[in-house]
Amino acid sequence: MTGRDTRKSGEFELIARYFAPLAARSTGAFGLEDDAALYQPEPGRDLVLTKDAIAAGIHFLPSDPYDLVAQKLMRVNLSDLAAKGAVPRGYLLAVAWPEAVTESDVALFAEGLAKDQDIFGIGLLGGDTVKSLGPAVFSLTAIGDVARGGMVRRSGARAGDAIFVTGTLGDAALGLKAAQGELEISSLVHRRALIQRYRLPQPRVSIGTGLSGAASAGIDISDGLASDLTHLCAASKLRARISQSALPLSEAARAAVKKDAGLWPSIYSGGDDYELLFTAGDEAAPRLEMLARGSGVPITRIGYVEEGTPEVLMEDLNGKSAALEAGGYTHF
Amino acid sequence: MTGRDTRKSGEFELIARYFAPLAARSTGAFGLEDDAALYQPEPGRDLVLTKDAIAAGIHFLPSDPYDLVAQKLMRVNLSDLAAKGAVPRGYLLAVAWPEAVTESDVALFAEGLAKDQDIFGIGLLGGDTVKSLGPAVFSLTAIGDVARGGMVRRSGARAGDAIFVTGTLGDAALGLKAAQGELEISSLVHRRALIQRYRLPQPRVSIGTGLSGAASAGIDISDGLASDLTHLCAASKLRARISQSALPLSEAARAAVKKDAGLWPSIYSGGDDYELLFTAGDEAAPRLEMLARGSGVPITRIGYVEEGTPEVLMEDLNGKSAALEAGGYTHF
Repeated sequence: MTGRDTRKSGEFELIARYFAPLAARSTGAFGLEDDAALYQPEPGRDLVLTKDAIAAGIHFLPSDPYDLVAQKLMRVNLSDLAAKGAVPRGYLLAVAWPEAVTESDVALFAEGLAKDQDIFGIGLLGGDTVKSLGPAVFSLTAIGDVARGGMVRRSGARAGDAIFVTGTLGDAALGLKAAQGELEISSLVHRRALIQRYRLPQPRVSIGTGLSGAASAGIDISDGLASDLTHLCAASKLRARISQSALPLSEAARAAVKKDAGLWPSIYSGGDDYELLFTAGDEAAPRLEMLARGSGVPITRIGYVEEGTPEVLMEDLNGKSAALEAGGYTHF
Repeated sequence: MTGRDTRKSGEFELIARYFAPLAARSTGAFGLEDDAALYQPEPGRDLVLTKDAIAAGIHFLPSDPYDLVAQKLMRVNLSDLAAKGAVPRGYLLAVAWPEAVTESDVALFAEGLAKDQDIFGIGLLGGDTVKSLGPAVFSLTAIGDVARGGMVRRSGARAGDAIFVTGTLGDAALGLKAAQGELEISSLVHRRALIQRYRLPQPRVSIGTGLSGAASAGIDISDGLASDLTHLCAASKLRARISQSALPLSEAARAAVKKDAGLWPSIYSGGDDYELLFTAGDEAAPRLEMLARGSGVPITRIGYVEEGTPEVLMEDLNGKSAALEAGGYTHF
């Protein structure tokens, strides 16, 4: 943790108290007491690197508890690594705290990171902590590795490959609507389950690390199935054909769309799923079955890719096919 | 460049237009069109990783030109790598733009990065671009490598090693005073030179990469000589003895302290030098001479380390020795 205006004694103490313990399992972090971290790559492995940032008021609410914010930051990055088939190894962190930050905020943030370090078996390597005159901004660089040449790209799909997704779709989008009071879910259990999926992503790390060598292409679903499958199609120069009836739904989401079919777009265009979307040939079937069984997370075939204009055609519940809009809105 | 709320069409276009060209020389960046970057470590090399963040209003002025801001961000990180003896290889970037950002701001920022990519021979690997409700916050993760086991640590100094610094000290601190109107420098050439040293650090990359295997310990001077040498002493568990008369000064700084001896603390306690501070044994002399000649940047012996309480004793211009305060102030 380095940089002028940040190495001052108060911040030194906070780093020593809350962040240095997070670096204890990373031998190359030197207790955050050097200028940089050392990482010794294992021979025969490629590194996979990803970096996501989140800002208060944009990606989370200033009132959100900092442990959940930290976990979300960690998990969106781990989801990217998982989609590439990489085993997570460590991370660097940059935190820009608002002026009104308290020590208990910092402690809670570190607590969230500590929880996820234990769950995902990684450690802090280094980073920086600064003050901002505005709301909090956090960024995290996650480092993973794969066998040489084994990174799963967006561009590797071959015509005829099946399209798979992990877990269930649309829960987070429905959970956000429910949390914002835009959607009434009468079952408290369902309501809670959906909101939880929005608040805390579950990156599919154990499945992801098994996809290297098995999936021909992959991406994680952060912007919604329609949008991210369109990205995969564009990179692979293929058309996707999927079936609405095949989309995997949780019990809560199933009940919601049964009550109001107008919620279907939340399933295939809503964001924040953090499920893995990938293509694979028939030969991968035994491996995928093993991964689903081992993780307890379903892997569902939702369609296939074919030669054609890069787009997503979905056969709806009435048997009619139409192109899905990639969706998304513009900040700029 | 990934992450929900950031992949939207307007930002996609800005990434394609301004950031993708920066990634052209990094084959593992895939034109910023995948979820993560691929980095294939060279066999027998260790990776060195560092991540610094800067926030508008704290580390730079909101009115500072964005190309200089980008270069400063890049260079503070490259300075950390240099202090560790690492060859810079690539970087990931997270930018949180204020709402009022314009396309020309983004273009100028990218222009600054492009300039430094050419100067330092590195390329963009990936990252994220988001909006913030507050002022801009930027963070950069720089990746370098060294021969296995060759990273220069803060902790490796041995009693009897000489202490060296690159370049000249205090220019940036004096330049900041001059820019803020707190210091009058009558020579316009001197004034300009000092302010330029504050505005744009010169990371000592070529000397740094030669220090692996030659320096016993090292750190870059970002918080001022007194503070950073204290860090090195603490990590190495040794006392430093330096001589004020040996400190290397630019012509401009020399003139300033000659006129007003009260400016001396800016030389040894001012920050933003981004010079390298390192220790080495006698056997390193030929290598250091070669590095100084090759880079055109002086390397000056300012003292030595010895057994004793970790602190910095400076013999002043009157021959009296006293402990230097590490200095620095507290944000929290």
